[in-house]
Amino acid sequence: MTADDVVAERLPETVREALLAPLFDHHSHPVRRDDLVRAQFEPLISRSGAPAPPGTTHFDSPAGTAIRRWCGPVLGLEPHVSPAVYLAARAELGAAEVNRRLLSAAGVVAFLVDTAEAGPEMLSLAEMGRYGGAAADEIVRVEEVERAVAEEGPAAVEYLGRLFDELATRSARAVGLKTVSACRHGHYLGPDRPARAAVIAAAGRRLADPKTPLADPVLVAHLLWTAVDVARDRGLPLQIVTGHGDPEADPGGTDPAPLTGFLRAVRPAGVPVILVGCYPYHRHAAHLAAVLPHVYVDVGPTLAHAGAGSAAIIGEVLELAPFHKVLFGSACRGVAEMCHLAAVFHRRGLARAAAARLDRGEWSPADAARIIHMIGSGNARRLYRL
Amino acid sequence: MTADDVVAERLPETVREALLAPLFDHHSHPVRRDDLVRAQFEPLISRSGAPAPPGTTHFDSPAGTAIRRWCGPVLGLEPHVSPAVYLAARAELGAAEVNRRLLSAAGVVAFLVDTAEAGPEMLSLAEMGRYGGAAADEIVRVEEVERAVAEEGPAAVEYLGRLFDELATRSARAVGLKTVSACRHGHYLGPDRPARAAVIAAAGRRLADPKTPLADPVLVAHLLWTAVDVARDRGLPLQIVTGHGDPEADPGGTDPAPLTGFLRAVRPAGVPVILVGCYPYHRHAAHLAAVLPHVYVDVGPTLAHAGAGSAAIIGEVLELAPFHKVLFGSACRGVAEMCHLAAVFHRRGLARAAAARLDRGEWSPADAARIIHMIGSGNARRLYRL
Amino acid sequence: MTADDVVAERLPETVREALLAPLFDHHSHPVRRDDLVRAQFEPLISRSGAPAPPGTTHFDSPAGTAIRRWCGPVLGLEPHVSPAVYLAARAELGAAEVNRRLLSAAGVVAFLVDTAEAGPEMLSLAEMGRYGGAAADEIVRVEEVERAVAEEGPAAVEYLGRLFDELATRSARAVGLKTVSACRHGHYLGPDRPARAAVIAAAGRRLADPKTPLADPVLVAHLLWTAVDVARDRGLPLQIVTGHGDPEADPGGTDPAPLTGFLRAVRPAGVPVILVGCYPYHRHAAHLAAVLPHVYVDVGPTLAHAGAGSAAIIGEVLELAPFHKVLFGSACRGVAEMCHLAAVFHRRGLARAAAARLDRGEWSPADAARIIHMIGSGNARRLYRL
Repeated sequence: MTADDVVAERLPETVREALLAPLFDHHSHPVRRDDLVRAQFEPLISRSGAPAPPGTTHFDSPAGTAIRRWCGPVLGLEPHVSPAVYLAARAELGAAEVNRRLLSAAGVVAFLVDTAEAGPEMLSLAEMGRYGGAAADEIVRVEEVERAVAEEGPAAVEYLGRLFDELATRSARAVGLKTVSACRHGHYLGPDRPARAAVIAAAGRRLADPKTPLADPVLVAHLLWTAVDVARDRGLPLQIVTGHGDPEADPGGTDPAPLTGFLRAVRPAGVPVILVGCYPYHRHAAHLAAVLPHVYVDVGPTLAHAGAGSAAIIGEVLELAPFHKVLFGSACRGVAEMCHLAAVFHRRGLARAAAARLDRGEWSPADAARIIHMIGSGNARRLYRL
Repeated sequence: MTADDVVAERLPETVREALLAPLFDHHSHPVRRDDLVRAQFEPLISRSGAPAPPGTTHFDSPAGTAIRRWCGPVLGLEPHVSPAVYLAARAELGAAEVNRRLLSAAGVVAFLVDTAEAGPEMLSLAEMGRYGGAAADEIVRVEEVERAVAEEGPAAVEYLGRLFDELATRSARAVGLKTVSACRHGHYLGPDRPARAAVIAAAGRRLADPKTPLADPVLVAHLLWTAVDVARDRGLPLQIVTGHGDPEADPGGTDPAPLTGFLRAVRPAGVPVILVGCYPYHRHAAHLAAVLPHVYVDVGPTLAHAGAGSAAIIGEVLELAPFHKVLFGSACRGVAEMCHLAAVFHRRGLARAAAARLDRGEWSPADAARIIHMIGSGNARRLYRL
Repeated sequence: MTADDVVAERLPETVREALLAPLFDHHSHPVRRDDLVRAQFEPLISRSGAPAPPGTTHFDSPAGTAIRRWCGPVLGLEPHVSPAVYLAARAELGAAEVNRRLLSAAGVVAFLVDTAEAGPEMLSLAEMGRYGGAAADEIVRVEEVERAVAEEGPAAVEYLGRLFDELATRSARAVGLKTVSACRHGHYLGPDRPARAAVIAAAGRRLADPKTPLADPVLVAHLLWTAVDVARDRGLPLQIVTGHGDPEADPGGTDPAPLTGFLRAVRPAGVPVILVGCYPYHRHAAHLAAVLPHVYVDVGPTLAHAGAGSAAIIGEVLELAPFHKVLFGSACRGVAEMCHLAAVFHRRGLARAAAARLDRGEWSPADAARIIHMIGSGNARRLYRL
C-alpha cells in the first residue's frame, strides 16, 4: 500500500503533503501484545465486546470490511481477502510484528495514551511509542485514580484530600487528564461545585462499597471539579468522553449539550476541555467548540468503527467547529488495527472534505493545507504544549 | 420502467442483480382497496393525515414528487406528470389494478403485515400477498390485543392472565409481535418488570375506562414484558416502533436511546428486537444494533416519505450498524404507492452507498453483493425463520 | 463576481433563473453602521461573541473562510485574500459602502427585521431596506416588549393587560412576531395556557426584579400565548427560535420536538408558526412541519456559520419538509457579511440539491424551478401576505 491509496482524491501537491504528514494522536489506549484467535479478535473489533450472533460475523460490519481493505495490505495481503485469510496472516506474522506494522503505518508522531486499561497483556506506553515510531505520553483517567483512592479505604473526611493529592501526583508525569463519567452516569452536571459537606457524606457511602463503579452524582461532580483544579494547577487539558462510543456509556445520557452549564462554569479556570467521541451528538459538540473559547472537539472514537461512512461525520463536525478547535485522536483500543483505521479514515475524510471545497471554489489550496495541518497536529501541539 | 431506471449507478453485474433481487418486507400495513378521490388520496401520502394548507398540495413534498416520478410509470405514464394526470390515470385503472401493479412492482417476496389497521376498506393479508405476488404473514400489534382484552372488561386480577393468553393465542398464527407504545408514551422504560400488585392496581384504573388508549407507564411496561414472554415462548421477534414516523408518536419522546435499560434487561430472553422507524434517531438505533447482540434496525417508515433524500439516511445507518443487523420494511400504509416507493428508495439508497464504496475501493464487488443481499432479505429470513 | 460563480452546477436555464431570483428574507437583524477594527469584527463573525483563543483567529472557521471567498469579491478583491487584506479593503471602502454592497449583493427583495437589537450604532429598518434595494418591515420580538412592560413597573394584576395591549400596539405596524424564549429557557412547554392566578403570582415576583431576563416558565408560557392571541387577531405569523443558534440559547434545551404539545394546542388559533434556526435539530423541525399544517421551518441562522458545509443541512431539511413549508431567512446579525453569506449558501445549497435530483431523474426541471421559487420567496409571500 502506498500513500496514494489512502488519499484517492485529485488534490494539489501541497494538500496531499498536508494529508500525509504525521498525525498527533491525542487520545488512544493500549493494544493487546499477544496472539489472538478469531474468538478473541472479533469482540475487539465490535463495540458490543461480545461474539456476533450465531450465523453472523463481526467482519460483516463497517470496521470488519475496513480491516480487510486497509489492514490487509499492511500485513502483505491483497485488499478484501477473507477474514480467515486475514487472521491466518496475522497469526503467521505474530502479534509483535503486526502491532509494529499497523502502529507505524498509522503515521503518528505522538501517542497520548489513556493507561487505565494497562495490564500485562497490553503494550506498555513505551512500547506503543516504540512500535509506532512515535513519542508516547500519558493521559490520566481520573476515574481510575478515584477507584484506587476509594479502595485504600481512607476516612470519608480524608477522601477529598487524598483524591486531590493522588490526582496531582499522577498528573505530574502526565500530559493531560481524562474523564469517562459524563457519558456513563448522565450529563446533567450543573454549574455548581458540590458543597464539601455533601461530598463527605457521599464519600462515606462510597467508601462502604469501593468496588462498585463511581456513580453518585455528587462524587462525579466533585471528581470533575478536582480534575479541573489539578489541570489548572499543572496547565493540562481535560478530555471529557461523551457520545455513545464508550463501552459502558448509557446511550440515554451521552449528549454533551447538557454539560453546557458545567463547561461555562469551568471557563474561568483556563483549562482547555476536549469533548472526545461525541457521536451521534458531534454537531452539538462542534457547536460548543464554536461558542465556548476553551472547548475543543474530537470524533476519533467513531472513525474506525464507521469506516467508509466516517467521512460524513467529519463533514458534519466541519459545519460549525472552528478549524483551530478540532483534534485527531485514534481512540485505538484492543487491537492495533483500530489505530491504523482511525488514521486512514481521518485522512480520507479530510481529503474528501478538502476536495469538495476545492472543486467548488470554497477554499484555496493554501486554506486546505493549513486547515488539514491544524487538525492533524497543530492544534494538539498548541493545546498540549508538546 | 425497467430495473435500469431504479439502479442508475454504474455497478458490476453481480451487484446490480443483488439490488434487483426480491425484498423481504418484514413490516407493512394494509392498503385501501377502494377508489380514492384527490381529497382522500392526499392525506394518505402525508404524515399529517390532514389536507394541505390552502393554496398548497401534498404533491409538493418529497413523497408527492416521488409518486409522480416512480409510480407514474407503473401506471403507464411518463415520469413527472402532473398530480391531476396521475390521479386521473389511477381512477381509470381502478384501485384493484393500481394495487396489483404497485405492490408487484415493489418486487417483494414476502410481506409481514401489521393487521391492527385491518378493515373492510383495506386489502386483507391474503390479498396483499396475492396482489404483490408474495407470501404474506401476520405481525400482531400488541396494543390492539390489549385494547380488545380491556374492552372485554375482566376483573383487574384477571387482566394479566387474559392479556398473556390472548397474546399467546394471537401469536400462534403470526410470525412476529410489534409494539407502538414506546414512541407514543415516552421511552424511559427502565430495566425492571413492574410488580404484579402495581400492574393489578393500574389495570383497575384502566378497566374503568377501556376506550382510552393505553398510556399508563406501568401497564405499558407490563404489556412489553408480556410481549417478550410470548415472543420467547414462541421463538418470535419483537418489533419496537421508535422515531417520529408513527402517526400518533410524541416527537418529544421517540428516541430509542432511553430504551437501553429495557433492551439490556430483555437480552437474556433471547428475543430478537427490531427497532423500526427510528428517524431522526436512526444513528442511535444503529449504535444500539452495534452494541446489543439481539437488537436490529429498520428505517423503512422514512424511505417513502423522504424520497430522493432517503439515501443519506441509509448512509447514516451504515455508519455503525453491522450489516447483519439491518432489515428492509416498507412500512407501506394506506396506499400501495408507499410500498413501491419504499422498495425503490431502499434499492436506490443501497445502490448509491455501494457505488460510492466501490468507486473509492472500500468494498469489493463480492462484499457489495453479499451486504445488499443480507439487508434485502437474508437477515429477515434468518430472524423470522421463514 | 457574477451570478455564475454562485451557482456552479450544470443546470437548465429555468432552474438557474429560479436560483438567482430575488429572495424574501423573512428573518434578519440590523447590522453595524460604523467602521470596525479587527478586534470588533472577529467576535461578530463567531457564535462565541468573544475573541478567538490566543494564537488563533475566527477567520479560521467555516464563516471566516467563506467571508474571504464570497465577500472579498463584493469588495473588489480576489477570492481567498488574507484576513488582513480583507479588513483593509473593508476599512478603505468604509462601512456605509460595504453595507450597501453586501446587502444588495445578497439579492433580497424584502427584509423582515427583528428590531430588538436596534440602536444608534445599527442600521435602521429603513436603511436596511435602502442599502439592500429591498422593502423592509418589522418583526416584533415579544421578549423585548415584555421587558419594557416589566420595567414600567405596573401592579402585577395590570401586567397581563399591559402586556397584551403593548404587544397589540407594537404589532399594529409589524408583519410578524418572534420569540426567543423557547430555546433560552427550555422547550418543555405543555399544551395548557397557564391560569390567570398563576400568571399574576409569577408577575409579582418578576416585577420585583424587572431587569433580570424573563425565565419563569409560567410567564414564558403566558407570553407565548399572549403572542398567539395578538398574532391571531392581526393575522400575523409567529416565529419561534429553536436550536443552538441563538447566542443565549441553552444547548441542553433547544430541541423543538418537546414543543409539540404547545404547537398542537396553538393549531386551532390559525396562526402560522415558523420554527427558525433549529440546527442541529432541523430534522425534528422538518418533521413537525410535515405533520402539523400550521408549522414551517427555516434553517437560515446556520447558513452563514456553516458556510461550505451548509448544503448538507439544507439537504436534511428537504428529507421530510413539504416544499411549501420551507422559508429563507438570512438571520443576518452584526455585519452585512452574514446576510450575503446566508443568501449565497441558500442558493448554493438548493443548487446542489436540485442538481443531484435532476441528474438522478428524481425531479423534472419544472419541479426544480417551482420548488426553488417557493422556498426562496413564494412561501413567505403567502404566509406574510406581502
